[in-house]
Amino acid sequence: MELVTLDDIEQAAARIRAFVLRTPLLPAPWAGDDDRPLWVKPESLQSIGAFKVRGAFNAIGHLDESVRTRGVVAYSSGNHAQAVAYAAAVYAIPAHIVMPQETPDVKVAATRSHGATVVLCGAGQRERVAAEVVEETGGVLIPPFDHPDIIAGQGTIGLEIAEDLPSVDTVLIPVSGGGLASGIGTAIKAMCPNAKVIGVEPELAADTAQSLSVGHRVDWSIEDRNRTIADGLRSQPSELTFAHLQRVLDDVVTVTEDEIRSAVRELAQRAHLVSEPSGAVALAAYRKGPSPAGRTVVVLSGGNIEPALLQEILAG
Amino acid sequence: MELVTLDDIEQAAARIRAFVLRTPLLPAPWAGDDDRPLWVKPESLQSIGAFKVRGAFNAIGHLDESVRTRGVVAYSSGNHAQAVAYAAAVYAIPAHIVMPQETPDVKVAATRSHGATVVLCGAGQRERVAAEVVEETGGVLIPPFDHPDIIAGQGTIGLEIAEDLPSVDTVLIPVSGGGLASGIGTAIKAMCPNAKVIGVEPELAADTAQSLSVGHRVDWSIEDRNRTIADGLRSQPSELTFAHLQRVLDDVVTVTEDEIRSAVRELAQRAHLVSEPSGAVALAAYRKGPSPAGRTVVVLSGGNIEPALLQEILAG
Repeated sequence: MELVTLDDIEQAAARIRAFVLRTPLLPAPWAGDDDRPLWVKPESLQSIGAFKVRGAFNAIGHLDESVRTRGVVAYSSGNHAQAVAYAAAVYAIPAHIVMPQETPDVKVAATRSHGATVVLCGAGQRERVAAEVVEETGGVLIPPFDHPDIIAGQGTIGLEIAEDLPSVDTVLIPVSGGGLASGIGTAIKAMCPNAKVIGVEPELAADTAQSLSVGHRVDWSIEDRNRTIADGLRSQPSELTFAHLQRVLDDVVTVTEDEIRSAVRELAQRAHLVSEPSGAVALAAYRKGPSPAGRTVVVLSGGNIEPALLQEILAG
Repeated sequence: MELVTLDDIEQAAARIRAFVLRTPLLPAPWAGDDDRPLWVKPESLQSIGAFKVRGAFNAIGHLDESVRTRGVVAYSSGNHAQAVAYAAAVYAIPAHIVMPQETPDVKVAATRSHGATVVLCGAGQRERVAAEVVEETGGVLIPPFDHPDIIAGQGTIGLEIAEDLPSVDTVLIPVSGGGLASGIGTAIKAMCPNAKVIGVEPELAADTAQSLSVGHRVDWSIEDRNRTIADGLRSQPSELTFAHLQRVLDDVVTVTEDEIRSAVRELAQRAHLVSEPSGAVALAAYRKGPSPAGRTVVVLSGGNIEPALLQEILAG
């Protein structure tokens, strides 16, 4: 299987530069651990509130113009939906986004606000309905993680970390479908070969931790994975992303629901950043310690949290 | 009276570069106003959570080393206290911070956490006690706004805005003692002479709006100014900052307490940024409209809000 290379990621960086925020690497002296000075990479500051714009812009930008004008199709109830809708709007092409009927109204509205057509579907029908929409519209399917262009786009975060902190020792990254960790890990291993790249999962959706330990993909039921509050971390790697993760991850750390909530609270109170539960797991893993010593970066993957849940978490 | 120049601000930028975050200019398509596209300058991301580090590092960095080693003294119950304590720690010099006895414990603790000596004093005694500490320690007083080096340091925000968005049409800036607006306004007027620079005050502490309209400084009682929730905007300009504001401000907009709370809420929910009430007034002024059309930047000056107040505001 062909894996994404540093060259692919550098090309992605050039392709998305005009459209995506180059997020700062925020020093976090409030972490207070001299052995493991901390930096936060806040992808929550992207205009749609999550890193997913990087992969979406790279995948759409990489299409031949003659193909791209036919439009794009995606299935997602989360940040990928908004990312594809937003990137399509910037490219002025049609977008059809397939979302489950139970998607919160606020997310449907946010996706429509970018001009996308939302197609609601029954539970478990997303991929089939998306295939039908592709058939009808002639649009191109933009998958949430299972594509080299998506992996390379997310990998631009790793490039930026390596540029801003070449002496980084450890990078902690949330793992779900694995596109983010595959991309960042590929960039970090190429540019900072001595750095450790560590995935982070909720204990309640720790399929990748188990899969890596046994050496092949283990399937957790969606009912099990749905138990975690970290709703962006309920997917599982594909064959493609799992091959990357086997190559680039040094370890996977799991965190509890309480640890995730504490990390959301700490990010709000100390870093002044609103994070979604999925976005806060890397800080939770750092706090859990003792991860490797040295200069540590936590990737804060997104900030799209329901206001009521944020209030509940802040109230402790 | 000699006013701060662009050259002073450029020197400040060189002086503080190694110590202060160059904050990104965040596009805010969520603002949804095509006639006034919005960007946010999030100074809340500085490691102490506010712009005050810029002036503190410039003032301390500009001291002769022989003088600097004697240490620094400041009086503040707010962000300036932490900024001076933090800058002193980085320069490895002693810092004495005079704080009113009624300062919340969390702020006293934060100031001490940087290694500063906190001197508690009675209400209205801050300046007198600070003068005594200067006398005793031989340290240098770092005032919160009434000094050219502080103004030039805060002005580096304006430099960055002009560099990142040379076509900016309007910049909205919170006004309290006036150091921030004096510095940013000086930089913007020099680099983007067609841009409008607009100060923002709470209606309940609108001394500068009134002062500029009558052409001289008008004193509002501290009891009146203390009514606003925006606790960082209860100071009044000095002779020096007022002279700058007369030169660089095109207008001052006032906002209500409800408008400030709504802006804190919107920044958390849409920009994923935690702001203190004082930090959110510029967005409140933008929302109040119709400020001038065109590309608009709001300066989010700080994010240090009590957790209980943030919860209360998010609950609406």
